[in-house]
Amino acid sequence: MIQIAGKELPNIPWEEKPQGCQNVLWRYSGNPVIPRDAIPTSNSIFNSAVVPFGDGFAGVFRCDNKARQMRLNAGFSPDGIHWTIDHDTIKFKNSPEGLEHFDYGYDPRVCFIDDRYYITWCNGYHGPTIGVAYTFDFKEFYQMENAFLPYNRNGVMFPRKIGGEFVMLSRPSDTGHTAFGDIYLSRSRDLVYWGKHRHIISPSEEYPWQSRKVGAGPIPIETSEGWLVFYHGVLNSCNGFVYSFGAMLLDLEDPSKVLARGGNYLLSPQTLYECVGDVPNVAFPCAALTDSATGRIAIYYGCADSVTGLAFGYVDEIIAEIRKNDMLKQI
Amino acid sequence: MIQIAGKELPNIPWEEKPQGCQNVLWRYSGNPVIPRDAIPTSNSIFNSAVVPFGDGFAGVFRCDNKARQMRLNAGFSPDGIHWTIDHDTIKFKNSPEGLEHFDYGYDPRVCFIDDRYYITWCNGYHGPTIGVAYTFDFKEFYQMENAFLPYNRNGVMFPRKIGGEFVMLSRPSDTGHTAFGDIYLSRSRDLVYWGKHRHIISPSEEYPWQSRKVGAGPIPIETSEGWLVFYHGVLNSCNGFVYSFGAMLLDLEDPSKVLARGGNYLLSPQTLYECVGDVPNVAFPCAALTDSATGRIAIYYGCADSVTGLAFGYVDEIIAEIRKNDMLKQI
Amino acid sequence: MIQIAGKELPNIPWEEKPQGCQNVLWRYSGNPVIPRDAIPTSNSIFNSAVVPFGDGFAGVFRCDNKARQMRLNAGFSPDGIHWTIDHDTIKFKNSPEGLEHFDYGYDPRVCFIDDRYYITWCNGYHGPTIGVAYTFDFKEFYQMENAFLPYNRNGVMFPRKIGGEFVMLSRPSDTGHTAFGDIYLSRSRDLVYWGKHRHIISPSEEYPWQSRKVGAGPIPIETSEGWLVFYHGVLNSCNGFVYSFGAMLLDLEDPSKVLARGGNYLLSPQTLYECVGDVPNVAFPCAALTDSATGRIAIYYGCADSVTGLAFGYVDEIIAEIRKNDMLKQI
Amino acid sequence: MIQIAGKELPNIPWEEKPQGCQNVLWRYSGNPVIPRDAIPTSNSIFNSAVVPFGDGFAGVFRCDNKARQMRLNAGFSPDGIHWTIDHDTIKFKNSPEGLEHFDYGYDPRVCFIDDRYYITWCNGYHGPTIGVAYTFDFKEFYQMENAFLPYNRNGVMFPRKIGGEFVMLSRPSDTGHTAFGDIYLSRSRDLVYWGKHRHIISPSEEYPWQSRKVGAGPIPIETSEGWLVFYHGVLNSCNGFVYSFGAMLLDLEDPSKVLARGGNYLLSPQTLYECVGDVPNVAFPCAALTDSATGRIAIYYGCADSVTGLAFGYVDEIIAEIRKNDMLKQI
Amino acid sequence: MIQIAGKELPNIPWEEKPQGCQNVLWRYSGNPVIPRDAIPTSNSIFNSAVVPFGDGFAGVFRCDNKARQMRLNAGFSPDGIHWTIDHDTIKFKNSPEGLEHFDYGYDPRVCFIDDRYYITWCNGYHGPTIGVAYTFDFKEFYQMENAFLPYNRNGVMFPRKIGGEFVMLSRPSDTGHTAFGDIYLSRSRDLVYWGKHRHIISPSEEYPWQSRKVGAGPIPIETSEGWLVFYHGVLNSCNGFVYSFGAMLLDLEDPSKVLARGGNYLLSPQTLYECVGDVPNVAFPCAALTDSATGRIAIYYGCADSVTGLAFGYVDEIIAEIRKNDMLKQI
Amino acid sequence: MIQIAGKELPNIPWEEKPQGCQNVLWRYSGNPVIPRDAIPTSNSIFNSAVVPFGDGFAGVFRCDNKARQMRLNAGFSPDGIHWTIDHDTIKFKNSPEGLEHFDYGYDPRVCFIDDRYYITWCNGYHGPTIGVAYTFDFKEFYQMENAFLPYNRNGVMFPRKIGGEFVMLSRPSDTGHTAFGDIYLSRSRDLVYWGKHRHIISPSEEYPWQSRKVGAGPIPIETSEGWLVFYHGVLNSCNGFVYSFGAMLLDLEDPSKVLARGGNYLLSPQTLYECVGDVPNVAFPCAALTDSATGRIAIYYGCADSVTGLAFGYVDEIIAEIRKNDMLKQI
Repeated sequence: MIQIAGKELPNIPWEEKPQGCQNVLWRYSGNPVIPRDAIPTSNSIFNSAVVPFGDGFAGVFRCDNKARQMRLNAGFSPDGIHWTIDHDTIKFKNSPEGLEHFDYGYDPRVCFIDDRYYITWCNGYHGPTIGVAYTFDFKEFYQMENAFLPYNRNGVMFPRKIGGEFVMLSRPSDTGHTAFGDIYLSRSRDLVYWGKHRHIISPSEEYPWQSRKVGAGPIPIETSEGWLVFYHGVLNSCNGFVYSFGAMLLDLEDPSKVLARGGNYLLSPQTLYECVGDVPNVAFPCAALTDSATGRIAIYYGCADSVTGLAFGYVDEIIAEIRKNDMLKQI
Repeated sequence: MIQIAGKELPNIPWEEKPQGCQNVLWRYSGNPVIPRDAIPTSNSIFNSAVVPFGDGFAGVFRCDNKARQMRLNAGFSPDGIHWTIDHDTIKFKNSPEGLEHFDYGYDPRVCFIDDRYYITWCNGYHGPTIGVAYTFDFKEFYQMENAFLPYNRNGVMFPRKIGGEFVMLSRPSDTGHTAFGDIYLSRSRDLVYWGKHRHIISPSEEYPWQSRKVGAGPIPIETSEGWLVFYHGVLNSCNGFVYSFGAMLLDLEDPSKVLARGGNYLLSPQTLYECVGDVPNVAFPCAALTDSATGRIAIYYGCADSVTGLAFGYVDEIIAEIRKNDMLKQI
Repeated sequence: MIQIAGKELPNIPWEEKPQGCQNVLWRYSGNPVIPRDAIPTSNSIFNSAVVPFGDGFAGVFRCDNKARQMRLNAGFSPDGIHWTIDHDTIKFKNSPEGLEHFDYGYDPRVCFIDDRYYITWCNGYHGPTIGVAYTFDFKEFYQMENAFLPYNRNGVMFPRKIGGEFVMLSRPSDTGHTAFGDIYLSRSRDLVYWGKHRHIISPSEEYPWQSRKVGAGPIPIETSEGWLVFYHGVLNSCNGFVYSFGAMLLDLEDPSKVLARGGNYLLSPQTLYECVGDVPNVAFPCAALTDSATGRIAIYYGCADSVTGLAFGYVDEIIAEIRKNDMLKQI
Repeated sequence: MIQIAGKELPNIPWEEKPQGCQNVLWRYSGNPVIPRDAIPTSNSIFNSAVVPFGDGFAGVFRCDNKARQMRLNAGFSPDGIHWTIDHDTIKFKNSPEGLEHFDYGYDPRVCFIDDRYYITWCNGYHGPTIGVAYTFDFKEFYQMENAFLPYNRNGVMFPRKIGGEFVMLSRPSDTGHTAFGDIYLSRSRDLVYWGKHRHIISPSEEYPWQSRKVGAGPIPIETSEGWLVFYHGVLNSCNGFVYSFGAMLLDLEDPSKVLARGGNYLLSPQTLYECVGDVPNVAFPCAALTDSATGRIAIYYGCADSVTGLAFGYVDEIIAEIRKNDMLKQI
Repeated sequence: MIQIAGKELPNIPWEEKPQGCQNVLWRYSGNPVIPRDAIPTSNSIFNSAVVPFGDGFAGVFRCDNKARQMRLNAGFSPDGIHWTIDHDTIKFKNSPEGLEHFDYGYDPRVCFIDDRYYITWCNGYHGPTIGVAYTFDFKEFYQMENAFLPYNRNGVMFPRKIGGEFVMLSRPSDTGHTAFGDIYLSRSRDLVYWGKHRHIISPSEEYPWQSRKVGAGPIPIETSEGWLVFYHGVLNSCNGFVYSFGAMLLDLEDPSKVLARGGNYLLSPQTLYECVGDVPNVAFPCAALTDSATGRIAIYYGCADSVTGLAFGYVDEIIAEIRKNDMLKQI
Repeated sequence: MIQIAGKELPNIPWEEKPQGCQNVLWRYSGNPVIPRDAIPTSNSIFNSAVVPFGDGFAGVFRCDNKARQMRLNAGFSPDGIHWTIDHDTIKFKNSPEGLEHFDYGYDPRVCFIDDRYYITWCNGYHGPTIGVAYTFDFKEFYQMENAFLPYNRNGVMFPRKIGGEFVMLSRPSDTGHTAFGDIYLSRSRDLVYWGKHRHIISPSEEYPWQSRKVGAGPIPIETSEGWLVFYHGVLNSCNGFVYSFGAMLLDLEDPSKVLARGGNYLLSPQTLYECVGDVPNVAFPCAALTDSATGRIAIYYGCADSVTGLAFGYVDEIIAEIRKNDMLKQI
């Protein structure tokens, strides 16, 4: 049986799979779990990151305001379902010289390593790149150097050092609505200087849901079968991009090696709250909670760039699905 | 009174026009008649073709799977409403040398001529072109030569030879989300070699619903007034393509001659299932059933590239509408 | 307290702000106030202009027909809610030589000055430009010279002469789905020759809801604080344009001077009828009614290029919001 | 015989047609008549306007500097061949409030009416539009109101009032490398307010050299056959725009009426200095000198956006060529 | 030693390879062999086809006129160097009903089979497609059915039937400056109906000179090693397309099989007359003469869409070069 | 007087400024100093890097071959004028695992630090990024890790460590003909991991020659006034990109600080070999030689992506020109 590494999380938000559901993932019946107007100033709350924190949960949320400016706010929840999000945006401290100005920030991820929570996000610095900060309490946030040169998005750290190095996935992009996107892996000894960049996966025309671009989603989940990485894929229809998500497995010791990659999406935008909103047809995962005791996984994903959804699955079913339609075996 | 050629079809799926409806076509109250998940592996089922078969109906369905790959599946129904679609995709037999590999297939049409059912579809062969096959039983399908060079879509055969030749409409296109599209007519003596290509209609900026491209829909319906051809038209808004459909009349003996062409659409995407889905704002007809006894017509059309809808009308009202707003008289 | 100039309008359509609503504007509970099929020939009715007229109201409506041709129709209402729209399109009289042919017309505004109602609209004359006409009774419409050279849209007159000159805002554009758009102001002594063109505002990347283009909406409202101008702003997402609207204040005596400009939108497309339709995600205001006795403002706005919505607000709250997030103070 | 209105110009720059030349226009053997580095600060000198002045000639020149900024400089010549161009750019005086800042200026025309020389040029004011100024001596230049709203280029005045009104041709455009362009005519009583805009000609796909856009060139030449207007036309090849020029005749009394329009170009870029330079393949006329005594016409045209060329022709041959291939007779 | 099939051609135009030339092809020292103004009405003469005829040579020439309209003219030469081109364009006779109107024609090829010369060209019929005609004397030309549906270019026939069928290569395209282009092969029994379409080659990103599109050039040359097919390839630089040409070998009995394909170009635009002109950087071959006695090949190719060039080579050196850098062996 | 740091170079290639030349830089009279066919397999040789080596000079050259594949070759010269370029391409040794495959390489720079010559180039690794290697003898080249994630170009190292760190300029880009480009600076302690990325300069619409993108050219030259950095700037005309070059000064101790930036270009493509070739209108500097004794600078720059040019200037005149038109003082 497939094991998830790490702690048990008995209070993981959860609903059992509905009767008759033939899919590996199923949606929370109370979706959207976070509405667009959860704070007075927000236009939308989506593409956000949550982690276990104390007896409950904490998170960093993308809260676009009513100027449609992209901002980050911290928040807390006792159960992962009901969230109290700060009305004030995060103000980073100790920013390196030259990075003090906050232009915009979006699509955060939160990764606990050792003693602190690292936040990576798409940070506006003469274009989008990967900002890095850390917090101990989700109240004080300390900014570090940007990891990479612009233009980059979807920087996702691994939850422990591998081979003595921090490891991050990212998706180099351009200045606009990027029409391409591969996932790369980079390494660092100190979270300041990064190198040893390696290519992980490209979009695939053979699997149209992920034919235009791909980008890592939640923090990789360590399992007995490898790192489980949920990632979004984009199809470019005549009426715009459609963001779905699937998953792959990376080698535990050398995560630049792909072990298996699912050809099918696990969840695509099909509900009204995923299909209708500021950007129609988007399901974009940024965080996952796991319970090593039961193999349960709860995925938070942005819906239509407007609200936040929650979906559930079991690690063994997810990995079985990856292997059943493994792209590496079909090529 | 206008006559439809061909057999009576007393079991044609049907609902009477709702009270107060001022339009020529009206939607089935149980729409979508085929949901997106009618088979376990399907992402969506739409742009599909049905015909009378035995005591009931059979069809070839576009069933995109959860990799969003475009596939064709056969199906059967006793009443045209409740469908049993094969879980396995169609595997073509006797494919000509060089055409054995099935890359992708979509938007099928089915046309009964003489003793068999011909299927034409958009067949991936180094780009989209018109595939041709036939079946006697919707179980075994025999592939013939592609009708044309790439790049082409919406190949629609006439239901009988005209002047001793098979006749097909098609819409030459390009490799992507084609931004143009005229309807042409071609002829063949043997369904292998095609020629005598003639231009039928172009999009018209004067009639914006059909200003970007036009393409034939169901198999032309032989009536006492000419061939009744439903066709889709595309408007290019700032937020993408909108697919509606209307109709025209072609000369019975020389179908390259347009007798009348309706300036107004007959049905445009206005319901949630037509406006919301994998491709918003699409109503795309691929098949029609007719009852010569009553003049009833039932049209199957894809909705938002996600599900299949059904709409109804009377042949005389449809042709009256074409003539009332005949583009040929207004230019 | 802020005063609106002009008459009292005790029968202004109105609903009180819902409990708990934290926004400055709120929607009419019966929205869409005008459905897409209010007349038999219409595909959609939106982006339309209404004014007090007699004991009730009159208006000029954009009624796209079922060829998706853009047409203008007059209409009347006793209460601003229930509208009777002429089934026949407006036929302009006395058109200047060379402008007799009506190609297309859309997005009308109606402005009462002195003794008559002026209509400005986007008039097709070898491309879109600003048509001008007047009526006394909304039955006979007399066409004047186009105000400007093509290509132009959203011509909006001020409701009185300023400095002895008629004044009009407009948004020069191009021949298609224009990707830019600033608001300019022009002056005329006779409504035939226009000049003294001045730039008013540009889109702003800092305020993404209005980062792509901006265009004036209803006739400017004279207040004790300046001319209150609602205007639409456009954000260009990867899936198309999103039209929201906000407001600014112009100097009463020299309206080419911007006094304040709100950084936040006042209303963005968030309901189904604003997000789903012929053009998803559009809220486009073209008219406002005001009651000087109470400071009430009722705004008519097009929804998804399909139907017409109605929203309400108080002038003092609106102007307070403009000043609270005044872009001029933040730059 | 065809008469040119206006003065004799015995010192018009001139060379006889080379032996064997079968074209209506022929190039000056000393081309480029003005090199790109005629002043120390210039990157290029082209698309410039000259007129008879005193015993010789004066002009306004587009002198892009070595930052490639577009600037205007005055210049003088005794013979139209040898030019002394001011090293300093023109500084306009008496600019209307709000227009004082010179952003950029290019493609000037100079038109003598009554007692002064009017300069029109593409003036940067939140985008390109038509600037207007006048001078008596080519030393002091007085700026007036811009004629039109942005975005516009190639404003070309008629050399006398017609029906009591000033008349100007222009080519409305957009903010960039405009891919469209029609010629329109506007009228004014005072050079401040303009109106009565009429469409003159569009590009024509049937005549590919002028299939993408057209724009007026030199000041129209009054002849006994009508106003002779040279205009540039643009073909869009796979490797960019090609600017050639041809001519048309407008009605003397109502210049919004086109009497004849030549289907063939008169001169297209074929020499090295026309085909190689900052913008390859450009021949762009901005001025013409005429001698009523002989029917001689000397045309100054920009070459490859780098240097200035000179070409010669006879009015009767030019008009004969227009009529021989008159587009109005061929459609 | 490699043999060319067919007749000896002792009067083939020829120059020996210059000393020190390391390339397989070399240019005629008198290039351009046909200037742009060889007839009074021509803007350019290029992309043209010549064949042995009588004691000398005849051809069909693309003669764009001074409206830049694309026209075809016949011509004759005693030596292949000095050409007399008809001043009048070709008027086709016996055109099938519906194809009588000549819209435009370009890039002709001429192929002798049995008793007549077949001309194929890009024929404007609601878009570009492959026109077919024949002549016995280059004076009377008889038009047949277009071979294919639009949109297509570069239709090139094989000089004899293969397997009892006529065979043609073509490059399906779109309506504009097509950014893609593969070579396909089609077959016909009667030159009216075509079928059995097979894909031959695609562009290759690995060989950038042919990375954007490829298209057949002269009539395939039958050799003892296979059909020698010269074809153009296009590289898309930041400043436009660059057309070079190379060659491949097809199987004699089944020409849908590629035996070898040269990775290097044989000739790319490097001279002034190839790099400067109406379309810079084009070398586009449309015809070749061969002498079976000596293995000499003379290639006519369009230069910069302006003039016609001539290049020479030996069949054995050309085929050796194909094999030395054979793409099929390197992949 | 301004001093250049570093060694004297008495054999620097040199010609005195021509009489009458008013520009700061002047071209070598024997340009192109390296022709496109200097080796048998080359299509073009340009954008190349040279350094003093032994008694003469060595370099790394971009030698595109006749498949138009981008390759790097080493070469040697006794005088910097006459070059012997290896016929074989460089084969890198000791490539890190995963980087062994050479896909393509272009636009090299060579930088001597301490004891070896570092080569940086645009290295194809799932897109363009910055490759790094070193050599002692220009015979053996040892590859290191790529400096950055794709997509990046124009990586240019400083010739000594600053603050204990290696420093590199680069221009992040995208996958194609990038339409944007800023210069950034990054730092490294070990040439493996890079960080502390800072923005240096952006393109400027106010200075059109550098309005589209900018990128560093030769290795920065240490002077008593700061680091002298030549950089290319791109203007986007309607007919494509134009590459010119200018210069700026960076702070010696903190090179992320710009001290002065010249508004004018120093050299723009104006000669035939710069304007005509595989990519017209390109002057692209990649290397400079300096003589500290005399202040002479010799710049090697690619011409039209076809050949290599050489230009000369004096350091004091160049810096005086930067300061005379300093953009920082004019904004």
